[in-house]
Amino acid sequence: MNELFDRIIDRRGTGSSKWDRMKAGFGVSPDDGLGMTTADSDWPTAPCVIEAVRQAADHGIFGYMGVRQPLYDSVAWWMGTRHGWQVDPDWVVTVQGLGFGIAMCLEVWSEPGDGVAFFTPVYHEFRIKTEKAGRIATELPLERDGDTYHLNLDDAQARLTGREKILLWCSPQNPSGRVWTVEELRAVADFAERNDLLLVSDEVHHDLVYPGQTFVPMHVACPEVTHRLVVPTAASKTFNVAGMRVGSLIIPDAGLRYAMRGRLRQLDYDAASLGMVMTTAAYSPEGAAWVDAQVAYLQGNIAAFDALVNAIPGVRSLPLQSTYLGWVDFSGTGMDFDEFMPRIRDVARIAASPGPSFGAGGERFMRFNLAMPRARIEDAGQRLQRAFSDLQ
Amino acid sequence: MNELFDRIIDRRGTGSSKWDRMKAGFGVSPDDGLGMTTADSDWPTAPCVIEAVRQAADHGIFGYMGVRQPLYDSVAWWMGTRHGWQVDPDWVVTVQGLGFGIAMCLEVWSEPGDGVAFFTPVYHEFRIKTEKAGRIATELPLERDGDTYHLNLDDAQARLTGREKILLWCSPQNPSGRVWTVEELRAVADFAERNDLLLVSDEVHHDLVYPGQTFVPMHVACPEVTHRLVVPTAASKTFNVAGMRVGSLIIPDAGLRYAMRGRLRQLDYDAASLGMVMTTAAYSPEGAAWVDAQVAYLQGNIAAFDALVNAIPGVRSLPLQSTYLGWVDFSGTGMDFDEFMPRIRDVARIAASPGPSFGAGGERFMRFNLAMPRARIEDAGQRLQRAFSDLQ
Repeated sequence: MNELFDRIIDRRGTGSSKWDRMKAGFGVSPDDGLGMTTADSDWPTAPCVIEAVRQAADHGIFGYMGVRQPLYDSVAWWMGTRHGWQVDPDWVVTVQGLGFGIAMCLEVWSEPGDGVAFFTPVYHEFRIKTEKAGRIATELPLERDGDTYHLNLDDAQARLTGREKILLWCSPQNPSGRVWTVEELRAVADFAERNDLLLVSDEVHHDLVYPGQTFVPMHVACPEVTHRLVVPTAASKTFNVAGMRVGSLIIPDAGLRYAMRGRLRQLDYDAASLGMVMTTAAYSPEGAAWVDAQVAYLQGNIAAFDALVNAIPGVRSLPLQSTYLGWVDFSGTGMDFDEFMPRIRDVARIAASPGPSFGAGGERFMRFNLAMPRARIEDAGQRLQRAFSDLQ
Repeated sequence: MNELFDRIIDRRGTGSSKWDRMKAGFGVSPDDGLGMTTADSDWPTAPCVIEAVRQAADHGIFGYMGVRQPLYDSVAWWMGTRHGWQVDPDWVVTVQGLGFGIAMCLEVWSEPGDGVAFFTPVYHEFRIKTEKAGRIATELPLERDGDTYHLNLDDAQARLTGREKILLWCSPQNPSGRVWTVEELRAVADFAERNDLLLVSDEVHHDLVYPGQTFVPMHVACPEVTHRLVVPTAASKTFNVAGMRVGSLIIPDAGLRYAMRGRLRQLDYDAASLGMVMTTAAYSPEGAAWVDAQVAYLQGNIAAFDALVNAIPGVRSLPLQSTYLGWVDFSGTGMDFDEFMPRIRDVARIAASPGPSFGAGGERFMRFNLAMPRARIEDAGQRLQRAFSDLQ
């Protein structure tokens, strides 16, 4: 029994997006189904973060918080210690979660009608946020070579329309889990430079990287891109605190930072005090040790899930270099989406994220959130085996 | 000893705006000074709210929260039970604190260069938010008659420039504490109607009203104004949870609501999950009982403060009908602001909010936050007496 991650916690009735909206959103009841959609975890955050919440409860005063230096310092400490990125605390601009942070990047650095480019398949919110903001999405398909996705920048160049102002980049990549190499990062920076695009490098999954891979921050790979670089990041995925809606835009360039801070000031924006305190508590040696334990546990989850799922003829769970988001290819079954998806939903009774929502390349995939206790991972694998048992 | 409110809690080092920024912002050290600026309280929130935080810590999962109906229902329940206002839960639009909520009203319903009107002296953030948003402030002075402020709508009418699109209205009024009568509310609604102004009725102080006064929501006083009414409100002042940045815009008109929700969706806005849970816990019978105890305690604070301060020749703390914000007139001392303010800051060593920041009519005032333990209130009154002892 792993005390930190094995305990099954009932999230029904807590307002959880994943569990309490799965019936309405995905047609699977939480009473006998499994929620594997929204990218949060079904285990508690690190003990040092919980302790910070307990101390806040003991203090009992939740008034205005006007001092953020400890938060900025902890972000800088984390990036330096965990990722070899020397961040000046002044570069950190706190935002109310990265959804808002990315929406603000679109607001500040593009106009309605401008283009926003991103490589697909990718985090579906890139397209949703782009369209909600009245910007036009330009999809740049990644190339798949067996189990791995690669950039094809010649193809990407040909797809640009000339109206693009921003490149939303995802590193490590969601949903494929790719951890990009320094060469790939430099090529993307060069692509942004050549096309005069603001480079928004969403690095939120950077802490969940598996042995054999090394995450390199864009700013480390290519400091020359500073003048067009904004790096959204957060403790949200790493520490399961996404509901508190605290993220950082790390902006090394003073001019870009000034523009973002000015816009946030107009909106009279401020994150929740306790969310900032939780992030500060997370970015600590105790938090780091917990993350290491979590990554080891996730590796076990991924191995268990892949073993069960890859035993189904024609189904392939792509090996993950990072993230807890299993990216599963059903194309080998010969079924199209409308055939395999109902089996997952109605027979396996699993709510998973539909591949097509991640854009070109995701048509015959589903994404499964594997941040749940091992027993449930095994249950999920067995459910999927049963749902496709006629293929055995 | 009042267990709820008498305990002196050291807020230094917690990031508190009021205490940890008083040296930088007001030139008074928190080590031997008193912080009486920012409108939060120096005592813990209600036990039922603290209990909700403890339960969240026990649960330990702070993932995405997608279900808000309990929050909407609790807001509606509170307005109905405490204020006789029948609010449909669908009218409630959650915002990240009222600063952001008011900034969003300016964004959605005016353009840069448009005018924003408000009656002064008033909550200084009305002017700051207006100017940060690139709108132009139109001050409409209240008329003072002895201890009380009144509307002068003929004068207000004459001051409008024609470019005003929004009236920011504060009810009950900060800093004067006025609880407006139904007749006054109807007259203001009529003024908004006549001049085609969106009426943003900030009712955040509505729970802190003293015996003999009855707060009436604008929508109850004048349902005819629905089509131009937005009501910002929150548990923030009432329950000392302002740092969690959760507020409500109550918008009874479907079209106005649609416009605000659309803009918030573009920004991918979401409040902190635990902040929403805390508000839901606050708006309960247990929360209501605590508020009643708090109002009684505040009455005692006000009486103690006024007795001490009004003993200083030429100084007058205006009687408060509502709020914990003492509004003190120093004009009878014959001193101007640059003379009395340094005495308060350097001799009394009290950080208080400068009257001039509240606009026309506040030139010779200071605002003192009285939401602190009684012993400190008495200390503050004695400090002020000493600082002006040469007037005795």
